[in-house]
Amino acid sequence: MEREHQESLIRTLQNCVKTCNICFEACLNEEHVEMMADCIRLDRECAEVCSLLGQFVSRGSQFTTELAGLCAKVCEACGNECKKHNHEHCQRCAQICFACAEECHRIAA
Amino acid sequence: MEREHQESLIRTLQNCVKTCNICFEACLNEEHVEMMADCIRLDRECAEVCSLLGQFVSRGSQFTTELAGLCAKVCEACGNECKKHNHEHCQRCAQICFACAEECHRIAA
Amino acid sequence: MEREHQESLIRTLQNCVKTCNICFEACLNEEHVEMMADCIRLDRECAEVCSLLGQFVSRGSQFTTELAGLCAKVCEACGNECKKHNHEHCQRCAQICFACAEECHRIAA
Amino acid sequence: MEREHQESLIRTLQNCVKTCNICFEACLNEEHVEMMADCIRLDRECAEVCSLLGQFVSRGSQFTTELAGLCAKVCEACGNECKKHNHEHCQRCAQICFACAEECHRIAA
Repeated sequence: MEREHQESLIRTLQNCVKTCNICFEACLNEEHVEMMADCIRLDRECAEVCSLLGQFVSRGSQFTTELAGLCAKVCEACGNECKKHNHEHCQRCAQICFACAEECHRIAA
Repeated sequence: MEREHQESLIRTLQNCVKTCNICFEACLNEEHVEMMADCIRLDRECAEVCSLLGQFVSRGSQFTTELAGLCAKVCEACGNECKKHNHEHCQRCAQICFACAEECHRIAA
Repeated sequence: MEREHQESLIRTLQNCVKTCNICFEACLNEEHVEMMADCIRLDRECAEVCSLLGQFVSRGSQFTTELAGLCAKVCEACGNECKKHNHEHCQRCAQICFACAEECHRIAA
Repeated sequence: MEREHQESLIRTLQNCVKTCNICFEACLNEEHVEMMADCIRLDRECAEVCSLLGQFVSRGSQFTTELAGLCAKVCEACGNECKKHNHEHCQRCAQICFACAEECHRIAA
């Protein structure tokens, strides 16, 4: 992976970690939390996997490519769940997750 | 910290990580998720801090004592929230969290 | 995954997290650290992936199987590096890593 | 914490996570690894604590202030170790760590 590509991926992943955490907390504060269970669950998983991948990329881990493949799937699942909900934090999170999934796919390919 | 003490603390912390994660997922599956928001929030924080502390203890980090002080507070907060709910997973989590808080306090002192 | 199987896997993963962290620190204290670079690197990655997988298993994440596949590879890589070194902490770590890889493979299959 | 302040802190913490991971890997590749043991150790701890704090800040955790106090100390310790070494990655890491410590202190106060 070229240095420039790497920097861009780390930035995208870190943005996804932040956005998923914001969405996680906002979902817990929604009036109808019972509709947000899958979103809360996936926000957490997505933040965890993106955080780990960002650190693997920074260190040039030999497992980066394979973890990126998994990360793409988690981001997509999280984005698909988020986009179902009209809350601004969910719509924003969906957008960031899909962008992150795309960058991860490119690395994993 | 003596070796034996260390082993016991790691075991307690890892048990707390597991129990908080089980409680987190079970809370998201409860009928009245809206009553479980604080529990879900604290289960996650408690699992994260206990996991980090367990790894710091295993490596003999110089920051173990101070992180143990914070961990004790997170475990107590999580235990106090969990014990309000009659679900078996919450009652069990409260018990494990209080035991973990106590061990952390002993290290932090 | 059956409850009993799940408990066993979590225990194995948590043991691997602990053992890799102990090996990481011990390697940094060895006289010939320059020979331990790959071991230090892989001990960290292995602890990180095993820790995440243990938490995914506890929560019944839909990504457990796929993460287990990656975890098996990281454990194997770490075990293969560790077994090259005669230090007791490396030999013990290799043994725990291979056992963990095997359990992960079984889940991933 | 105001929204703007929060965004700035998260950015600083994520930058510190990245820089510590880059320094960790670069230290392992140095000719005299045996002189870098403390740097490797602290780079890892600093990345771990900064990563956790960044996620706590994003979620508005009640433990943010206290974790920031600990994070400031870890960043300072890492910066102090890094600045002893003339490698470019260490000098850069020291600079980022000290800046991060300062922002954490401001939150913790």
